[in-house]
Amino acid sequence: MGDATFEENHNQNQNQTSSLVLDIYPLSSYYFGSKEALPLKDENLADRLLRMKSKYHFSTGYSARGLRACVEAVILVELFKHPHLLLLQVRNSIFKLPGGRLRPGESDIDGLKRKLSRKLSANENSGGVDWEVGECLGKWWRPDFETLLYPYLSPNVKRPKECTKLYLVKLPESRKFIVPKDLKLLAVPLCQVHENHKTYGSIISGVPQLLSKFSFNIIEN
Amino acid sequence: MGDATFEENHNQNQNQTSSLVLDIYPLSSYYFGSKEALPLKDENLADRLLRMKSKYHFSTGYSARGLRACVEAVILVELFKHPHLLLLQVRNSIFKLPGGRLRPGESDIDGLKRKLSRKLSANENSGGVDWEVGECLGKWWRPDFETLLYPYLSPNVKRPKECTKLYLVKLPESRKFIVPKDLKLLAVPLCQVHENHKTYGSIISGVPQLLSKFSFNIIEN
Repeated sequence: MGDATFEENHNQNQNQTSSLVLDIYPLSSYYFGSKEALPLKDENLADRLLRMKSKYHFSTGYSARGLRACVEAVILVELFKHPHLLLLQVRNSIFKLPGGRLRPGESDIDGLKRKLSRKLSANENSGGVDWEVGECLGKWWRPDFETLLYPYLSPNVKRPKECTKLYLVKLPESRKFIVPKDLKLLAVPLCQVHENHKTYGSIISGVPQLLSKFSFNIIEN
Repeated sequence: MGDATFEENHNQNQNQTSSLVLDIYPLSSYYFGSKEALPLKDENLADRLLRMKSKYHFSTGYSARGLRACVEAVILVELFKHPHLLLLQVRNSIFKLPGGRLRPGESDIDGLKRKLSRKLSANENSGGVDWEVGECLGKWWRPDFETLLYPYLSPNVKRPKECTKLYLVKLPESRKFIVPKDLKLLAVPLCQVHENHKTYGSIISGVPQLLSKFSFNIIEN
């Protein structure tokens, strides 16, 4: 009995079947260009935690806005017959999934689309470019103004400081990515990020596991 | 803006909403008893890999049956207001999710129900006890007759040796668990298994991440 049979059995029995096959397109299907640098907050994690903690940052600190709610996109392309994850690199060091913080009252989906257009499209106001935001893959909590993240919320944590939700974003067969000059867009193989906490951090290094239920359907062009 | 608002926004926008809230019941809702030991293959992983590799094990080896297809259950209960994962412990050492190998041609769901009845119910032929097998949470591959597992299949692996699929199994509000005497059934907090590869292995230590998209609804009784 080969793998085919196993997958077939699976298909016969699962309602979620259709959603467990993920179409991915070759990296060469996409166009990559650049645009002006964004007025990004040029800060590292330590700075940001300090700012969140401070009572004097009325507009963005925890005491003013509460939980920092973030959304990030898991976007895949094919290269060398293996799924690659799209990552943004800031200043040749930090790797990030495309996404960011929600505005007060903004929905996950709207916020993620806004962030994706801002960081990956020519027109920030998403003129024409739409993003197919799929299912939520996972969630990471920051219980305190510290660097550690957890995929669950302990019962003793009453006021978590940050929550980052990961959504699967499905690409169409072709698209133009226009990335701010101060960011680098990279396609990194799943096998390279898997359990590589040191280079990519908890969130990114756990993505291959969150995607493991899917079978990838590589569409050649 | 507190977490409630974040979750509400989420709820307004997601089709998958209902499936993202998981009801869990207190450990005290369940009855635990024991039954005769199963005629289990008393072998460790090294022995099993050796047996899989051997051409002389016609009935169970790779050359005869191909890919070893396994299914395992992620079953949760509440204790101290935190989700706990049900694990079976073999000989005071190895921890396993309840489940096992599929028979040739058997579906994931049927095989998992059979294994769960065998290991967790009084009547092996599931007389009356049914199991609510939910979505597939993840998949782990063993590309070779070696101990390492991966949550993806590399393109150079043409004939993987083993695939283990994890399914969410939802418990009713009460149930009798009847466990073979040679196995111990444990409820281990998610915060203890998270990233604890050394004690629990890759599959179990990754479960909190695979569950992270869910919010837990603890039902008191």
